[in-house]
Amino acid sequence: MDYTSGLQGLGILVLAVCLLPTMTAAQQPALNLIPVPASAQAGSGSLRVDSSFSVALTGYSEPRLDRSVERFLRQLARQTALPIALKATKGPKASLVIQAEHASKEVQEVGEDESYVLEINATGAKLTAPTPLGTMHGLQTFLQLLDVSPDGFAAPSVTIQDRPRFPWRGLMIDSARHFTPLDVIKRNLDGMEAVKMNVFHWHLSENQGFRIESKKFPKLHELGSDNLYYTQDEVRDLIAYARDRGIRVVPEFDMPGHSTAWFVGHPELASGKGPYEIERRWGIFDPAMDPTNEKVYKFLDELISEMAKIFPDHFFHIGGDEVNGKEWDANPKIQAFKKEHDLKNNDALQAYFSGRVQKLVVKHGKTVVGWDEVLVPGVPKDIVIQSWRGQASLAQAAKQGYRSILSNGYYLDLGWPAARHYAVDPMSGDAANLSPEEKQRVLGGESCMWAEYVNPENIDSRIWPRNAAIAERFWSPQEVRDPATMYARLDFIGARLEWLGLTHRTYYRKMLQRIAGVASPEELTALRTLTDLLEPVKDYTREPLAPAEPTSATPMNRVVDSVPLESDAGRHFGELVDQFLTASCLDTVSEARLRAQFTAWRDNDAKLQPLAQRSFLVKEVATRSQDLSALSAVGIAALDAIAKGQPASDSWKAQQLAVIEQAKKPKAQLLLMPAPAVQKLVEAAVAGGACFAAKP
Amino acid sequence: MDYTSGLQGLGILVLAVCLLPTMTAAQQPALNLIPVPASAQAGSGSLRVDSSFSVALTGYSEPRLDRSVERFLRQLARQTALPIALKATKGPKASLVIQAEHASKEVQEVGEDESYVLEINATGAKLTAPTPLGTMHGLQTFLQLLDVSPDGFAAPSVTIQDRPRFPWRGLMIDSARHFTPLDVIKRNLDGMEAVKMNVFHWHLSENQGFRIESKKFPKLHELGSDNLYYTQDEVRDLIAYARDRGIRVVPEFDMPGHSTAWFVGHPELASGKGPYEIERRWGIFDPAMDPTNEKVYKFLDELISEMAKIFPDHFFHIGGDEVNGKEWDANPKIQAFKKEHDLKNNDALQAYFSGRVQKLVVKHGKTVVGWDEVLVPGVPKDIVIQSWRGQASLAQAAKQGYRSILSNGYYLDLGWPAARHYAVDPMSGDAANLSPEEKQRVLGGESCMWAEYVNPENIDSRIWPRNAAIAERFWSPQEVRDPATMYARLDFIGARLEWLGLTHRTYYRKMLQRIAGVASPEELTALRTLTDLLEPVKDYTREPLAPAEPTSATPMNRVVDSVPLESDAGRHFGELVDQFLTASCLDTVSEARLRAQFTAWRDNDAKLQPLAQRSFLVKEVATRSQDLSALSAVGIAALDAIAKGQPASDSWKAQQLAVIEQAKKPKAQLLLMPAPAVQKLVEAAVAGGACFAAKP
Repeated sequence: MDYTSGLQGLGILVLAVCLLPTMTAAQQPALNLIPVPASAQAGSGSLRVDSSFSVALTGYSEPRLDRSVERFLRQLARQTALPIALKATKGPKASLVIQAEHASKEVQEVGEDESYVLEINATGAKLTAPTPLGTMHGLQTFLQLLDVSPDGFAAPSVTIQDRPRFPWRGLMIDSARHFTPLDVIKRNLDGMEAVKMNVFHWHLSENQGFRIESKKFPKLHELGSDNLYYTQDEVRDLIAYARDRGIRVVPEFDMPGHSTAWFVGHPELASGKGPYEIERRWGIFDPAMDPTNEKVYKFLDELISEMAKIFPDHFFHIGGDEVNGKEWDANPKIQAFKKEHDLKNNDALQAYFSGRVQKLVVKHGKTVVGWDEVLVPGVPKDIVIQSWRGQASLAQAAKQGYRSILSNGYYLDLGWPAARHYAVDPMSGDAANLSPEEKQRVLGGESCMWAEYVNPENIDSRIWPRNAAIAERFWSPQEVRDPATMYARLDFIGARLEWLGLTHRTYYRKMLQRIAGVASPEELTALRTLTDLLEPVKDYTREPLAPAEPTSATPMNRVVDSVPLESDAGRHFGELVDQFLTASCLDTVSEARLRAQFTAWRDNDAKLQPLAQRSFLVKEVATRSQDLSALSAVGIAALDAIAKGQPASDSWKAQQLAVIEQAKKPKAQLLLMPAPAVQKLVEAAVAGGACFAAKP
Repeated sequence: MDYTSGLQGLGILVLAVCLLPTMTAAQQPALNLIPVPASAQAGSGSLRVDSSFSVALTGYSEPRLDRSVERFLRQLARQTALPIALKATKGPKASLVIQAEHASKEVQEVGEDESYVLEINATGAKLTAPTPLGTMHGLQTFLQLLDVSPDGFAAPSVTIQDRPRFPWRGLMIDSARHFTPLDVIKRNLDGMEAVKMNVFHWHLSENQGFRIESKKFPKLHELGSDNLYYTQDEVRDLIAYARDRGIRVVPEFDMPGHSTAWFVGHPELASGKGPYEIERRWGIFDPAMDPTNEKVYKFLDELISEMAKIFPDHFFHIGGDEVNGKEWDANPKIQAFKKEHDLKNNDALQAYFSGRVQKLVVKHGKTVVGWDEVLVPGVPKDIVIQSWRGQASLAQAAKQGYRSILSNGYYLDLGWPAARHYAVDPMSGDAANLSPEEKQRVLGGESCMWAEYVNPENIDSRIWPRNAAIAERFWSPQEVRDPATMYARLDFIGARLEWLGLTHRTYYRKMLQRIAGVASPEELTALRTLTDLLEPVKDYTREPLAPAEPTSATPMNRVVDSVPLESDAGRHFGELVDQFLTASCLDTVSEARLRAQFTAWRDNDAKLQPLAQRSFLVKEVATRSQDLSALSAVGIAALDAIAKGQPASDSWKAQQLAVIEQAKKPKAQLLLMPAPAVQKLVEAAVAGGACFAAKP
């Protein structure tokens, strides 16, 4: 199939999606699917799923396919508690018949056919795909469709023809700044499979840790990891686990910067004098490999050789980001080398280093992936640029003939709402103007979970459910972009993912329990009422607002470590305010709901204070509780003023805005999310009440 | 130490407990300890626990002790999220210094010294004990004392001298009716350790399953378990896990009845003709071993020989309960045998069988434990009676010279409130009148988790936290029996146990999520508001009230399978009503709280109904929701009438009682817990209002 017919096909699929009523109904999508499939055609009726449910495999067969079916059946049993048989049957008489045509590649490749067709009607279901990659995706679609109904568990009649928009749909986890235990990675791979992501990018080395066993250079992990590293057997097991879920594993060894932990055992690689210690702080640090030292390349040759054998994937990430050059500048030998080789600046020196390392990676059969910084003149075309800088760099790379993936806009640690990530499209901005051929070089994107502030307790709530919105951006047609329906489906998958073992909801509650200590249920409710409305400060503002310099030993037991990065309650409140203010005249139902909400919030502080007196971890958010109380009083006053139907005075406004300003300030590194919406109410009151209010 | 001085010692300890203010303050016990220690003396100040916290082992040392310290430190890190070192240090300069004097027995024995002394002050803590059994208990006490404080995590200054009241403090889990995966048993052993229970009684065979691998008779587990059995290696691993927690493992092979699953592979053991199939239903069934067949004893000799080697414990449980005798009566050969041997009835026949088996058990170095039925004239004195019939049988056994343990009153599956279990004392009733020597024969008790209606999702919520109240009954001085302080501490341990990995709270939420399907948070709240007030029907009424005959294949996904067996919200409501009615005159604060509660409950039904229309699992409880709504209207009417201060009319009363009767009826196998308390309000209204109300 040439590109043009592919595009036409896509056009038809997109049209089908746009025609689906389910995709435009903001409140109640009929299909709870995330990512939205390329095409879905609703039928009538539904397929009942009871204890007799069975699956048959016909056509191509391999053990991975059997395992995927068993995993599917186990998950189906978990979702329903039905005592179904956990093995595939033979023959075509099963409730769900699966047919793959042939094997996928032995080592999963970028751009392999991942399409599938799933047909469900009242009498049975059929799932067909060219390879097991497609059937695995289709099984996840079935699991999402399966829901409780008035008559039992059921999946709706539907015909889905599905395929991904981008071939590279990744999640990066930084296992170096904080170590990620294997079970935590595995449950996140389960989550990735559920939303059809296919690349796990494993950030394995950093200033703060070298996290994989090297048999050739054991001092790397022995001295550079605080004994928190993955053995090679564990890594092989994880790669097999990922392959079973249609997920490639791309390792990253960040160099020449971000590498202090290497130098603890191997100071001879560094540009400075050492000695070096594992870095405990966060930020960009001076240590960097010495690009002028031939021993460095010999070392990397052996290390890459060792690692390339462990990771079967065709791609190998060498990092390359954020070298500040201070060690290079301070080293006369390096300065002399630059002059001698006519390397005008440190960028040129790094380009020299990257070129040398790229040759080593190619020698060991792999293709280099690197962050933006590796893209400098003269770098070979067979390199993939991962852009943390944005679509402009992506477009620039594509124009120059490089393949690329976008991560700018998908940094999960920045605390953005899902809708903001969701609005970022790899093909927007400068990338929108690329030629069709250039566009093909944009392979997709990766969300990134940088790990300054994550541990096994809270990493899931930093990744999920927001990562599902990003997964949809990479999989679904570009036109699927309504945030309201996305959020409805995100709530759905947020609940479902807990059945896979993810802990984004359960651990939030547990952490609150720890924060409160021995608390009555009422007190815990009071704490939860407050914390449900708080979000950690955004972007890179946690450090400047920290009570003390954070390090890798800082306990993560505070409210800021516990609350989800996006407040559902805050968002729902904002929606309610908008609904109230857009009503043609006084919307008494919304008004009553707002008033009840404000009253509960205003009175919450009195319930919370006893707890604040008992626990230092609650005490830290006591002022946030007072702010919520004061903000709620403002909200009530604004509703009163609006109900009067006469413009409120400027002095009244000034008083209210002063309270709102207090509420808007970050405190305890936390934002009080309802503040902007309350401000809208105050402004509406000043404009003369609801019937004359400024529309949001 | 002779018995008299022991009694005196106990007297002093009991006195100390009674003098402790913490033990009589109903609302806010200063020490959140369950079980309550034999003696505790509060000091002033507290020991701060921060990242520098350390533990040193001095004195006697063994690997189990090291592991117990590491486990303690891991748990402490979990409770605090502090990055503490997870290894014991050497030397006496640690925050907590632990000293055991000598080893405990190689195979843990009944009545070994489990005492310990724990002293905590502002500068450090010291834990001493004769053996590791004591230090392990002391570490659990420390973990319970550790809590969040205004200045950080801390443990209060206190001196605790502690020892158990009874040497046999057990939990029985029936892994036969439904299989219990090993990880589920392990987390329950963790829970047992936390509350100082020391016997895990493992009910391994039943009509519904033979759950342990036999290498001598592999058809037992191969044909009798649906492939759900424990390998011998797994069992050994579990026994080691238990020993590490100071817990003995007593296996039970129930015979001659409750043994259908044995007969699937070995019909030659049975008294009937067969063939036999694994039983899928619940109840008492006819199949029983043939006591007249010498091959049966040969078989049991070999099997007991094999199993006695796997289980190091000195005790071996042979069941012996509930033989209905029908197969015996129907077998002419058995009838002839009875005549020939002058066995007057089936009890005598069973006594003959028990005597033969007892000899085999003794031959393999063990002491027999059996249910009440094994206690028949002539049974050797070296046998332990486990009483499911009550203290009368316990006393009878003790008088006849038998040792015994009580399980009557501790059946967790009957759904009793914790306070009811808590009120059952092994030494009450007939047992209270035993002589001191006879009393010593009462070894303690066991709670029992029979498994008709439990699976890995809900077993924790059937056992915990109520089992902690029973654990306290077995450990703490007899005088510790105030249910109000017990409940306060039970709430505490209920939250804490989740940090050990128990799922009694998290899975309730997850199961509600499944019941509701894709529900908005508000709808889930509406469901939870209702289900928090429901309890499964009690005792053995689930079967007669079942919508269809329950079997081992019945899905456990209904509300009745999900809600805790004791409703905290229902109990709190009852307490509030009592408080309102015992006030000297109209208690306006309680009245306002009751009114708010009733209003919320009354209005909840409207919020729940949309969900009931979508999910068959919610639909099942829709009438319970309507009952709650109607009941709440009655409650409001009663409050109105009470506020008037004039006696309500008889016709009014009749109307209200009719509604209450509806609410009291079990529906969907569920009880609506607030009904009796609302009836109290109605009766108070008829009596003329609060100032004249009948006191509860």
